[in-house]
Amino acid sequence: MWLLGARGNVAVTVAAGLAALRAQKVASVGLCTESGPLRDCKFTDFDDICLGGHEIRTGEVLEVFDRLAESDRIMNPAWRADVAADLHHYQRAIVLGAERGGELARLVGDLQAFREEHNISHLVVVNLASTEGSSGELPTSEAALLQAAAADQLPMSTIYALAAMQAGAAYVNFTPSTGATGEVFDALARQHGCVHAGRDGKTGETLLKAALLPMFAARNLRVQSWFGQNILGNGDGRTLRDPASKSAKQSTKAGLVEAVLGYQPDCHVGIDYVEPLGDWKLAWDHVLFQGFLGTQMSLQLTWQGADSILAAPLVIDLARICALAMERGDTGLLSSLGFFFKEPLGSQVHGLAEQYEQLVGFVMPDRA
Amino acid sequence: MWLLGARGNVAVTVAAGLAALRAQKVASVGLCTESGPLRDCKFTDFDDICLGGHEIRTGEVLEVFDRLAESDRIMNPAWRADVAADLHHYQRAIVLGAERGGELARLVGDLQAFREEHNISHLVVVNLASTEGSSGELPTSEAALLQAAAADQLPMSTIYALAAMQAGAAYVNFTPSTGATGEVFDALARQHGCVHAGRDGKTGETLLKAALLPMFAARNLRVQSWFGQNILGNGDGRTLRDPASKSAKQSTKAGLVEAVLGYQPDCHVGIDYVEPLGDWKLAWDHVLFQGFLGTQMSLQLTWQGADSILAAPLVIDLARICALAMERGDTGLLSSLGFFFKEPLGSQVHGLAEQYEQLVGFVMPDRA
Amino acid sequence: MWLLGARGNVAVTVAAGLAALRAQKVASVGLCTESGPLRDCKFTDFDDICLGGHEIRTGEVLEVFDRLAESDRIMNPAWRADVAADLHHYQRAIVLGAERGGELARLVGDLQAFREEHNISHLVVVNLASTEGSSGELPTSEAALLQAAAADQLPMSTIYALAAMQAGAAYVNFTPSTGATGEVFDALARQHGCVHAGRDGKTGETLLKAALLPMFAARNLRVQSWFGQNILGNGDGRTLRDPASKSAKQSTKAGLVEAVLGYQPDCHVGIDYVEPLGDWKLAWDHVLFQGFLGTQMSLQLTWQGADSILAAPLVIDLARICALAMERGDTGLLSSLGFFFKEPLGSQVHGLAEQYEQLVGFVMPDRA
Amino acid sequence: MWLLGARGNVAVTVAAGLAALRAQKVASVGLCTESGPLRDCKFTDFDDICLGGHEIRTGEVLEVFDRLAESDRIMNPAWRADVAADLHHYQRAIVLGAERGGELARLVGDLQAFREEHNISHLVVVNLASTEGSSGELPTSEAALLQAAAADQLPMSTIYALAAMQAGAAYVNFTPSTGATGEVFDALARQHGCVHAGRDGKTGETLLKAALLPMFAARNLRVQSWFGQNILGNGDGRTLRDPASKSAKQSTKAGLVEAVLGYQPDCHVGIDYVEPLGDWKLAWDHVLFQGFLGTQMSLQLTWQGADSILAAPLVIDLARICALAMERGDTGLLSSLGFFFKEPLGSQVHGLAEQYEQLVGFVMPDRA
Repeated sequence: MWLLGARGNVAVTVAAGLAALRAQKVASVGLCTESGPLRDCKFTDFDDICLGGHEIRTGEVLEVFDRLAESDRIMNPAWRADVAADLHHYQRAIVLGAERGGELARLVGDLQAFREEHNISHLVVVNLASTEGSSGELPTSEAALLQAAAADQLPMSTIYALAAMQAGAAYVNFTPSTGATGEVFDALARQHGCVHAGRDGKTGETLLKAALLPMFAARNLRVQSWFGQNILGNGDGRTLRDPASKSAKQSTKAGLVEAVLGYQPDCHVGIDYVEPLGDWKLAWDHVLFQGFLGTQMSLQLTWQGADSILAAPLVIDLARICALAMERGDTGLLSSLGFFFKEPLGSQVHGLAEQYEQLVGFVMPDRA
Repeated sequence: MWLLGARGNVAVTVAAGLAALRAQKVASVGLCTESGPLRDCKFTDFDDICLGGHEIRTGEVLEVFDRLAESDRIMNPAWRADVAADLHHYQRAIVLGAERGGELARLVGDLQAFREEHNISHLVVVNLASTEGSSGELPTSEAALLQAAAADQLPMSTIYALAAMQAGAAYVNFTPSTGATGEVFDALARQHGCVHAGRDGKTGETLLKAALLPMFAARNLRVQSWFGQNILGNGDGRTLRDPASKSAKQSTKAGLVEAVLGYQPDCHVGIDYVEPLGDWKLAWDHVLFQGFLGTQMSLQLTWQGADSILAAPLVIDLARICALAMERGDTGLLSSLGFFFKEPLGSQVHGLAEQYEQLVGFVMPDRA
Repeated sequence: MWLLGARGNVAVTVAAGLAALRAQKVASVGLCTESGPLRDCKFTDFDDICLGGHEIRTGEVLEVFDRLAESDRIMNPAWRADVAADLHHYQRAIVLGAERGGELARLVGDLQAFREEHNISHLVVVNLASTEGSSGELPTSEAALLQAAAADQLPMSTIYALAAMQAGAAYVNFTPSTGATGEVFDALARQHGCVHAGRDGKTGETLLKAALLPMFAARNLRVQSWFGQNILGNGDGRTLRDPASKSAKQSTKAGLVEAVLGYQPDCHVGIDYVEPLGDWKLAWDHVLFQGFLGTQMSLQLTWQGADSILAAPLVIDLARICALAMERGDTGLLSSLGFFFKEPLGSQVHGLAEQYEQLVGFVMPDRA
Repeated sequence: MWLLGARGNVAVTVAAGLAALRAQKVASVGLCTESGPLRDCKFTDFDDICLGGHEIRTGEVLEVFDRLAESDRIMNPAWRADVAADLHHYQRAIVLGAERGGELARLVGDLQAFREEHNISHLVVVNLASTEGSSGELPTSEAALLQAAAADQLPMSTIYALAAMQAGAAYVNFTPSTGATGEVFDALARQHGCVHAGRDGKTGETLLKAALLPMFAARNLRVQSWFGQNILGNGDGRTLRDPASKSAKQSTKAGLVEAVLGYQPDCHVGIDYVEPLGDWKLAWDHVLFQGFLGTQMSLQLTWQGADSILAAPLVIDLARICALAMERGDTGLLSSLGFFFKEPLGSQVHGLAEQYEQLVGFVMPDRA
């Protein structure tokens, strides 16, 4: 796995989590690839996953671990000794990220070097970097894309997507940034013999919506408004104080409601930064709906989760699933992974139970 | 439709709701048979549904309407003039209920008379009466059942179930009472050419659980405790102050969690009576779960609904579906209606999305 | 009482409420002047309160009543016949409002005419009009104020405040608009022999804060963040979609926290418009605080109230208290009414219990 | 300080907290005696507080610290080295508790020995032991009490109260157990030259009620029901599964509402054990109230706190205040400490702000 934003909270939680799993300090709770029907499928062993990444920030990975363990209270400080060696190896495989499109070739080279040095069968690049502001439309042909890259006219998330594909690596966009959004990337991935998937990991409020909206639809309860307010205190939250990033984030959260209900209620998704929460995220949702005879009723939800703890296992799941897909020769956009994403590229299935069924069918096509 | 507990809140909401639908004062919100794929199926028209019922309490149906409209605020007082005539007809078709097993034959006669008087094709009896205390095991043969009925050793809900079947009517148990629970009733219904279904309408907290538990399972989030507390102020709540009724209610709510998760977390279902709530019911649920690396997170829900408004459309849906099933010649236990019940007789499917899929497949076998 | 914004929800609730009180359809719940120690004080009888007001919108008062009763569900439609005559009288006493400073003299004349026609002893003008955007600094001398009024350089709420004082009427600013904010108005009111008070009625979230902040302070629990989110669906909410009005509203809510705690935690007050809520307002507050040994704990609140129902009785209370003050010869700013206001003019007392003590002491100086 | 239940969570949090304060690892957050006006008063220094206690359970104090730090996550595991020595001293001063009334004299001796060994000026005994079941009426004369003690007819909490007083030590009952409830103990304390106070520390839900009920009263908002549900996972919660203990706990929580409001709404206080919560306690409160025109509105609260973290600083505050009172010669029941207790002995003041004013007045009588 090659993590973009390699010193961020999610990436370090991935690295520390894999180390803790190898050291058998924790059970595999939170990993979809370790439970239910998928448990019977043969994914890459935790011991065989090799980690590296790009990062533009400096600092020690172990210091990020210490902060997550002590001030964010999302993992046990007592594991420090057990994970330190693995985090040290990971730190050595972190390479300076790029900030301009002209560095595309260098990024491809970084990925190839990592693959060769560690003798990696299937390389999976996962975008975990800070959310970019919304960008305009991307070119729709490969030639135009490359020209735009050279002219430094593409968002960096798209430069990295191109780098991954040119290196023959799978690309997973776990953020709301543009990345590989657009049909041209399906063709590009097929051409380079790799897979890609996205967009924006579904970890909290949208996960609940995907589970609950089908209930309102099946029961013919008419949702009048769905007001969601998220507060969080980590770097992701700080980035979202920039209105452009916030609007990118809000837009990946918007489409779901109408897609499931068939009509558009009054919706709102607020995201605000509350520094003392650290890596914790709270979502308060208020749903107003009409039932029989037009009577107005309501549902309130408060979801209290640790952002990185919710995201990290999905990153590992996605990497394992992409490696499996490449092992069996799949190429192009993986359109059956909507279970993991807020804005599932290539899929119109939005109910969570259906998405899970679709995922299991994709991973285990031979299962009855 | 023949409603047991004919002057109760749910029954009067069914009657007033059908009247308001006929008078086109309201849309068909809340009726599953009027939305999604089921909308394309031909169910009995609202105009063709004829209502009667058994009741042991006295009083005017219109007074119940007034209370529900004015003090419980669950329907519009302005509809009074539009629904009064229909409620008056309904009132005239209410017959004194039975309180002893020895009256079985009289009950059968009441049902037959209603069917003949109104020239009814398919009679559906729905149990909406107050929850009984838990009873012991029922006899498992028809002969023993009839003997126990004559000896007044059966719960009244079971007497009514027998009456329905002996009259060739469908029987739906919308309450946690015993009713037709047990395999013998499948055989009995087949023999009398009718259908039956149950148990305990799924209107609030359990509905949410059925929608959310599959999410925890699919994401491998380990539920440590699910604490649910219901407060309500209607007659149902008053009945539940009796520990025996309460325990019956709590038991139909219990099985779901382990069935979906595959393990048994620390669960609690509290039900308490808070008189000023009237027909409104609040459920507060607190779910504590472990995610990746064992980190503890939580979800809180507050569901604020009107009990009768949630229940009444399901009663109409069930009656329409039973009539359809009998029209096409089905007999015996209908085991595909788990979507509607807390403790679905004959079914092991507990996730709401799967239950809905099962329902659609049952109602429209030729679809897709 | 002379209500500015006379056809708005709060004003019509005041009028309908007084009518219902006179007709003895309701008890005096919600009126501070009818409970506790204040119950022993002799305020103006409900029968002796005469209503009029300024309004720039057209429409029938009775139609507003119908909307509040039927679609907003905040009062009983069954009272219509009992309140119609009083609402009709009120409607006849509503005069076209002003939209320019040049109309100051006309407004003074309107007030004087109303007082004479109805033989009113003490006239109290209450600002209930839509929140204006924040305005710049007001002039600080009376002469400069009058000059600015003539040059149409004052906010309309200030023009109305001047009109009230020039007519010798009490002026109460129940909104966040500028109105009579500034020391010059104390002098002006003294000079015209009248009283004034403000600013922004304390009806929901800020009321809870005023009750709870002293608890955190006294227990030395360190508040780290107080995140408040309000959603509402009435005209007030629609106005607040204008960023200027929203910022005025948020600023009157801000000062309290630091004033009580002595330090400034991370605070946020969000206000959003959710149309299907109608006159109902929900506030969700999340308070993160440190206790002993720095352990982080939290409190969440959900306040579900009807905006006009919370505001209207305070408007009546304030009018009665101002009339009492003028009866006993008080003039100038009434600085002991912080119990009623989010941003109490002239007062540094912010804890609710202390504010209540201050209020009782002001109204009944001879008690104890 | 002499702690009854010396190896329980609260006692160990007191001990570890004092050690962390002495080691300057933490600020004095949570201590009322270190903030507001009380900050100016000269209480015993943390360095001068000497700890011991009675306990019937065995086990290492440091192991309790480890559990609280690691599995209950209520204090920082990193402090272990800093507090270990102090916890070791504390452990050596823990003496086997009594389980029969006949041991009264031995208990008195234990207290006297501790005082002499450590040269203590003012000894304060604080009851932190598990809640007993409700007991019958106590004798009302000292002679009868002693007779009942000898005949083993008194609750153990009362035996300990007698022991404290006979040793001339202050006695504080921080639990709902009987302890020194009854007028005879005022006389007894005066006679032995010591003070006493109680009953049941006010740490969570009741604290919120004491802050919020005066708001409802002052605003004349009519509370119709107050439904409170507590869930917790510590030993206290386990004890409360015993119906007798539960009923004792619920009864100390009951009186407040009517005392503040002047009428009795529909109240409920539920307490349930949810093991995975550990030392954390959640309280969900739902308040239904009528406002103007009888309109029904609601407030919901979710309080999420660590039981021992909330209790421990109050225990230290109470010990410091009792020592101060004894230093200045007070004897008998201290009736001005209602700020700290659910069921304040000797006081009819229930509003939190008033209780705080009363406390400050008691501690600092010379303050303006």
